[in-house]
Amino acid sequence: MATDEAAEVHGYTAEKTSHLKRLRRIEGQIRGLQRMVEEDKYCIDVLTQVSAATKALQSFSLELLEEHLAHCVVEAAQRGGPEAEEKVREASDAIARLVRS
Amino acid sequence: MATDEAAEVHGYTAEKTSHLKRLRRIEGQIRGLQRMVEEDKYCIDVLTQVSAATKALQSFSLELLEEHLAHCVVEAAQRGGPEAEEKVREASDAIARLVRS
Amino acid sequence: MATDEAAEVHGYTAEKTSHLKRLRRIEGQIRGLQRMVEEDKYCIDVLTQVSAATKALQSFSLELLEEHLAHCVVEAAQRGGPEAEEKVREASDAIARLVRS
Amino acid sequence: MATDEAAEVHGYTAEKTSHLKRLRRIEGQIRGLQRMVEEDKYCIDVLTQVSAATKALQSFSLELLEEHLAHCVVEAAQRGGPEAEEKVREASDAIARLVRS
Repeated sequence: MATDEAAEVHGYTAEKTSHLKRLRRIEGQIRGLQRMVEEDKYCIDVLTQVSAATKALQSFSLELLEEHLAHCVVEAAQRGGPEAEEKVREASDAIARLVRS
Repeated sequence: MATDEAAEVHGYTAEKTSHLKRLRRIEGQIRGLQRMVEEDKYCIDVLTQVSAATKALQSFSLELLEEHLAHCVVEAAQRGGPEAEEKVREASDAIARLVRS
Repeated sequence: MATDEAAEVHGYTAEKTSHLKRLRRIEGQIRGLQRMVEEDKYCIDVLTQVSAATKALQSFSLELLEEHLAHCVVEAAQRGGPEAEEKVREASDAIARLVRS
Repeated sequence: MATDEAAEVHGYTAEKTSHLKRLRRIEGQIRGLQRMVEEDKYCIDVLTQVSAATKALQSFSLELLEEHLAHCVVEAAQRGGPEAEEKVREASDAIARLVRS
């Protein structure tokens, strides 16, 4: 089945439920920020919440990345050939975007 | 009125509409991420979207911070005394949290 | 005297000795990195040292920035006028560069 | 010979000369910062140089990391077994340190 294959290829599907829970919590943080702005909360308190949401997004991306290395990159390395190289470059580009964001 | 005073104290109220628009767009990005995870999208594409949402949060916090400096910190400096010092320290702590998140 | 004026304008001069000590320590970390590369140390250990040096540079910049806000920005705010606005914008740009680096 | 083996294991040895050149340039930037502090240069200009040095360190670490993935992690994956898992976890921890620094 397509979904099972995807589970193998993408690596993160096993953790899908936990990922969705995390993203829903982050969505809640963003909605909390909207409430704070609507209620004219003090800027520093808003900033503290923005930092918390940013950190939560970052932890999420680090988890995704580790799963990607553990599954997609390792499997491509085992198959060998140019695909392994391509996966490493692609992962490195994603890491650079994370580090710079 | 409390709200008018808050508007003066917090500085960002004038930009309230634009802030709420931004936060709603970020909320949309987070919901987009949930859809991507649900549809087993490729991890690297999910990561690219996470980086985009992180950058959007960061730009939002930089804007809030600039408004805070331009209003709360500048006004406290003009009133002088220990409050000015306290505002500078508070802003510096918020900057440190941003830089480290 | 020019130096005394500079001390007032730049704010960080009082902490000059401590800043120079910090920068010399960071220079030592960078030279330590060169030795590690020369001795073919394990990449992960090199990366750990690079992170330590990056964090040290970041703390240094956060300290500089706090001094800048406490002196240059506060004094410009007290003098008032367009200079205060300019200083806030300049500080905000520096913060944005820090957050994005 | 030990060094030749290390060259294979660490991956970055082929790029040793270019790495050392980069680190020497960063060392020069740090010494330039010391001169700026000694000469009481304007804080914002010092901060701009600190951001440049931080970015240079970051690019260096991203390059090291890519080489590490391309060599150590890929080779461990090809050998298989628990070593591959360990390498992925170790690389992920290094990435987390980078992202958070």
